[in-house]
Amino acid sequence: MHIENILKDLKKDDNQAYLLTQFTNIKYISNYMPTSFAFCIIKENPIIYASSMDMEIAKRDSTIEIKQYDKFETMINDLKEDGIKNLAIEPSLVYSTYEKLRDDFKIESKKYIEKERMIKEPDEIRNIEKATEIAQTAFKQLDITSRSETEDVLAFDLVKLMIENGASGASFDTILVSGSDTSLPHAVPQPKELETPILIDWGAKYNGYCSDNTRTIVYTEKEHEIFDIVKESHDKAINAIKPGLKCCEIDKISRDIIEEYGYGDRFIHSTGHSLGLDIHETPGFSLKDDTVIEEGMVITVEPGIYLEGEFGVRLEDTIAVEKRGRIIGDLPLIL
Amino acid sequence: MHIENILKDLKKDDNQAYLLTQFTNIKYISNYMPTSFAFCIIKENPIIYASSMDMEIAKRDSTIEIKQYDKFETMINDLKEDGIKNLAIEPSLVYSTYEKLRDDFKIESKKYIEKERMIKEPDEIRNIEKATEIAQTAFKQLDITSRSETEDVLAFDLVKLMIENGASGASFDTILVSGSDTSLPHAVPQPKELETPILIDWGAKYNGYCSDNTRTIVYTEKEHEIFDIVKESHDKAINAIKPGLKCCEIDKISRDIIEEYGYGDRFIHSTGHSLGLDIHETPGFSLKDDTVIEEGMVITVEPGIYLEGEFGVRLEDTIAVEKRGRIIGDLPLIL
Repeated sequence: MHIENILKDLKKDDNQAYLLTQFTNIKYISNYMPTSFAFCIIKENPIIYASSMDMEIAKRDSTIEIKQYDKFETMINDLKEDGIKNLAIEPSLVYSTYEKLRDDFKIESKKYIEKERMIKEPDEIRNIEKATEIAQTAFKQLDITSRSETEDVLAFDLVKLMIENGASGASFDTILVSGSDTSLPHAVPQPKELETPILIDWGAKYNGYCSDNTRTIVYTEKEHEIFDIVKESHDKAINAIKPGLKCCEIDKISRDIIEEYGYGDRFIHSTGHSLGLDIHETPGFSLKDDTVIEEGMVITVEPGIYLEGEFGVRLEDTIAVEKRGRIIGDLPLIL
Repeated sequence: MHIENILKDLKKDDNQAYLLTQFTNIKYISNYMPTSFAFCIIKENPIIYASSMDMEIAKRDSTIEIKQYDKFETMINDLKEDGIKNLAIEPSLVYSTYEKLRDDFKIESKKYIEKERMIKEPDEIRNIEKATEIAQTAFKQLDITSRSETEDVLAFDLVKLMIENGASGASFDTILVSGSDTSLPHAVPQPKELETPILIDWGAKYNGYCSDNTRTIVYTEKEHEIFDIVKESHDKAINAIKPGLKCCEIDKISRDIIEEYGYGDRFIHSTGHSLGLDIHETPGFSLKDDTVIEEGMVITVEPGIYLEGEFGVRLEDTIAVEKRGRIIGDLPLIL
């Protein structure tokens, strides 16, 4: 079905084929996840050129015909023999590959797959729900406030608990940091004992799909004050989500609240991003994203306030867009 | 020093600036490792445009001036005001960024940083040695043949042991597989009990630098027979390494031995790859790589034979090129 949609898009844009190299796009369209490299060509008769190393798993997993990659020229010749003149590519294609194609084809970059992936199918949502359930169960089992190990060991134990609960791994590098490091949105857990406050941004991977949550455990009066602002921003943004609005409107609702309290310049990232096979997908709740929200999208809401040298607070949930926004999982914000 | 070399390369090629977006290239040149995105411009006065989220760590870590990224047009205007007309880019730059540059600059893709990174400095080699020491210590502590857990749990425990020994994490997804899955060069550990033979391909990350080793534990007569061929290929390739030879000559020595025994078509990958900040760097011991071997390179030797549906054997060590090739670490091949 996805392939049919893409063939229609290709026809409409007068392209005869679409080259995919991004692993999760190839997995999405064929069920085969490359391990080193692969070239997937969507055309009337789609084909994947797989590395010799991957032939066994590619033949096992792929719903699309597999051919062993030999050399680039062979692939170009095959495409020419198929009468392909206008070739669509992904915006993420690396320049060196583009360079090898541009003399033989008219090239145009297109987000055909991203467009398909924006709207999740029921089984994709189930996988994200299951990943979230695993991640939140592991978090409860970790029982972080009762522990006295170092940040890096606790981060590691959280991943171990996710795997024991059925995850294939973490969906991104776990952020489990404390003290003033919480003011770094992408801080790395250190071999140092937990201070306060504690910020945990973590997720599980299940069946290839990601989850993503953030919680901050606060202690002092000032930390509680900042927490309450972030919570208000988080809650009101989620309550506002519905099909028909634009993504940037949700970002604005979240951002306005933080600005009202005078921390606008300390909310230094977007309000949220879609997720699925990748941890960051489009669309996102950002200032510049005017994509119209649709049922079936799955997007995070994660406002934060970062006080450099002091501390930071971020609260994140993953939202399934239905008639309204539905929070996936059941982990409270206040722990 | 690296920046001076690149400025010379730029001048020679009549380019006025070099745009870097690859995280490890930016880390190599500035000591700052981006967490989401960054644009580094090497020119007379080098500058890095960092994400608002990274400003705190970028200012802390970078040896190059940091400016907060605002929008793409600002950066283009800054470059134009600096009189930059010919802009060099990395071959790995994504097409969508190239597209935003091509109307304003004459673009040429160059591997200036890869050229620098090919030859490791003494402290880089020490980091790779330390990563290898950690990984091999963890492997011994795992004592795999005495264990009865499932593949995925054992793979996880190996990573945990590496972290306990001082690694910041694994240098790539650990391959710890058994039985017929050993015939897949990039197999994923499963929630199933260990069968035989057992293949482990693992590495640690220390100070940003990677290690990489593979061992295969064999049991049956046929497995031993294949092991001995791979071992001969591994040993002879390593013994042949010396500055002045071409990389492809080492691949040929390794491959010829496996071919002599009639398994040439079952050696389905290159003999080795360089490593450093990335797990796969150039040059590699491959059929097509005619780079001349130099002192200071660090390259793996990892021949393998893969019998589809039966089993596979791969043996891998990391080699520091000095007057001859020196194996990093001291883990025996026969376990």
